[in-house]
Amino acid sequence: MKNRIITISREFGSGGRTIGKKTAENLGIPCYDSELIQKIVQESGFTESYVKNADESASSGFLGAAFSSRTFGPTNEDYLWSIQQKVILDLAEKGPCVIVGRCADYILRDKAGCLTAFIHASLEYRAERIVNVYGEREESPEQRIREKDKRRAAYHRFYTNMKWGYAKNYHISLDSGVLGIEKCVELLQALY
Amino acid sequence: MKNRIITISREFGSGGRTIGKKTAENLGIPCYDSELIQKIVQESGFTESYVKNADESASSGFLGAAFSSRTFGPTNEDYLWSIQQKVILDLAEKGPCVIVGRCADYILRDKAGCLTAFIHASLEYRAERIVNVYGEREESPEQRIREKDKRRAAYHRFYTNMKWGYAKNYHISLDSGVLGIEKCVELLQALY
Repeated sequence: MKNRIITISREFGSGGRTIGKKTAENLGIPCYDSELIQKIVQESGFTESYVKNADESASSGFLGAAFSSRTFGPTNEDYLWSIQQKVILDLAEKGPCVIVGRCADYILRDKAGCLTAFIHASLEYRAERIVNVYGEREESPEQRIREKDKRRAAYHRFYTNMKWGYAKNYHISLDSGVLGIEKCVELLQALY
Repeated sequence: MKNRIITISREFGSGGRTIGKKTAENLGIPCYDSELIQKIVQESGFTESYVKNADESASSGFLGAAFSSRTFGPTNEDYLWSIQQKVILDLAEKGPCVIVGRCADYILRDKAGCLTAFIHASLEYRAERIVNVYGEREESPEQRIREKDKRRAAYHRFYTNMKWGYAKNYHISLDSGVLGIEKCVELLQALY
C-alpha cells in the first residue's frame, strides 16, 4: 500500500466520526463513512437499509444471526463482512483517506502507512454529547451508549478476534472528553 | 492540585521511561523515577534494595506475599504501597513534574491538571530494544518481557483494580515502536 491512511475506531458518542471528518478536511483527503455504505451497497446488491442495519453498529439482527444461524453456513452478515473488507482494501489502494469504524484498523493492520487511532471518553461526557448531537430519545443516553458499545465491541471481537478498547490494538488512543475534539484533530494531523 | 503533572505507565522495554525523562527535560520540570525510590526509602526506613525488589516490577516476593500472606494482615508491600501513595501525592503538590510508573496514574486519577499516558510497543520492538539498552541475559528477551509485563500488570491490577493496558484508563496511549520515541515526546509536550 503506497497511500497514507488513518483509521478511526471509536466509542459511541466520543466524537470519533467528527474527529475523522475534521482531520480529513484539514488534510484535504476524503473521509469514508456513509460513502462507504453506498459503495458496499453498489457492490453487494443488498438494499441500503439492510446494510445500515447489519453494519458494525450491529442491529439486534446481527447478534442473533452471528450466534445462532452460523451452523447453517455463512450468514448475510458474513457476506457483508467480506464485501466490506474488499471495499476497504480498494479504498486504501485508491488514495490517502480517513476511514471511520468498520474494523478498518483490523483490515489494514499489516499495511505500512496506516495509522490506527482509537477515540474514547467517559460515559458522562458521551451521554451529554449524544443528547446535544442526536437529541433526546425515550431511552436514557447512558442506556443508548451501553447498548451501542456492547454491540460494537461484540461485532469487532467476532470478526477480528481482538479485544475492543485495548491500547495495544492502536498506534494512538485519545480521550476526547479530556483532551477536546480540536486537540485530537491536531494530534492526528501532526502524526500524518 | 494546582500543578500540571504527566504520569507515564509503560510496558517493559517500550521506552516509556526514556520518553518521560526527555519530555521532562524539554519542559524543564523534574522526572521522578529512581529519585522516588530514594524518597520512599527515606520515609519508610526500608532498605533501598528491599524497596527496589518490592516495587511495581513486583519481584517474585510480591506475588507470593500478595496472594498468600494477606490473611495475616497487611504485608510489607501494602505498607510500601501506602507510603508510595503519600510520596506521589506530595510530589504532585510540590510542583509540576513527570512521574514514571508506580501507579501514579491511579493515585492522581481525580486530580485536575494531571495528564495520564500509556506507552506500549510490539514484543519484537521491545525485545530488540532491551537487548540494546540492558544487554544480553541468560533468558531470552521475549521471556524477560513476558515475565516483567505479567508482574507489572498483576501489581497494577492488585492495587488499582483497573485493567492494565485498557485505552480508557489513560488520556493518551502511544505505540512507541511505530511512532518512534521522539514523536511520543513531541506529542506529550504538545499536550502539556
